[in-house]
Amino acid sequence: MSDEHYLQEVLAEEIPLTKAIGITVKKFTGDSLTLSAPLENNLNHKSTAFGGSLYSVAVLAGWGLLHMHMRAAELPGKIVIHESRIKYLRPVTGEIIATCSIAVDTGIEKFLQIFRRKKVARVLLSVQILQGGKVAVDFTGRYVVHQ
Amino acid sequence: MSDEHYLQEVLAEEIPLTKAIGITVKKFTGDSLTLSAPLENNLNHKSTAFGGSLYSVAVLAGWGLLHMHMRAAELPGKIVIHESRIKYLRPVTGEIIATCSIAVDTGIEKFLQIFRRKKVARVLLSVQILQGGKVAVDFTGRYVVHQ
Repeated sequence: MSDEHYLQEVLAEEIPLTKAIGITVKKFTGDSLTLSAPLENNLNHKSTAFGGSLYSVAVLAGWGLLHMHMRAAELPGKIVIHESRIKYLRPVTGEIIATCSIAVDTGIEKFLQIFRRKKVARVLLSVQILQGGKVAVDFTGRYVVHQ
Repeated sequence: MSDEHYLQEVLAEEIPLTKAIGITVKKFTGDSLTLSAPLENNLNHKSTAFGGSLYSVAVLAGWGLLHMHMRAAELPGKIVIHESRIKYLRPVTGEIIATCSIAVDTGIEKFLQIFRRKKVARVLLSVQILQGGKVAVDFTGRYVVHQ
């Protein structure tokens, strides 16, 4: 089973609303995770993407990326979002495509080390939703992982 | 038709995902709007409420309250969320109940006056989701209304 297929099943099973949103795990590279969702499931009153759907896809891109790293490190842990901020810079008028990328200085290895030692760790992740090559939504979330 | 029934129909028609989330318009008092959603539609991997669902109910409590004030003032306008932040203080383990209250100093009248003059106005609203009498989720959003 591919990494993408595995994560797709995890999301569908553990967070059923992802099926109504229509989330698809597009690509996992190790350094980044891209999720998508069709516009039609997530329309708002302006026939663009609903802000709550954009938030949901973004928060799950970060969650999924952490989930994959915890799995690769064979660490059991529950990942939860602690706080976040989101900026809507332009409307999303097509498929919602959200990518969480780990910058070199985010220190995922350090994060995993702290988790191994303390059984709890925190990490700040950024997710962007692009529209026509420009950033439409900018999300930053602080996640906590505990045993 | 009651205010609550009217807003329920607006949400179901304009933002179809609200039906999957199971949003119910509980109470509109003029100064506050309370929305709810059942836990079962919105479960996460920890059998508590999914962060994206909590965000969606919160952002719509603010949106709905503005919608009702624009309607009462007979002003046409599109309300969009511009940016927001959300803090998850404790897990929500039962029905999601989100209330947006307008503080006396929020100046909804001033906001409506600005909109009448400039055809665009911004307002910062707070929404809280309570769990057992304590704040579980604290949301603040900046909304923009334009013609």
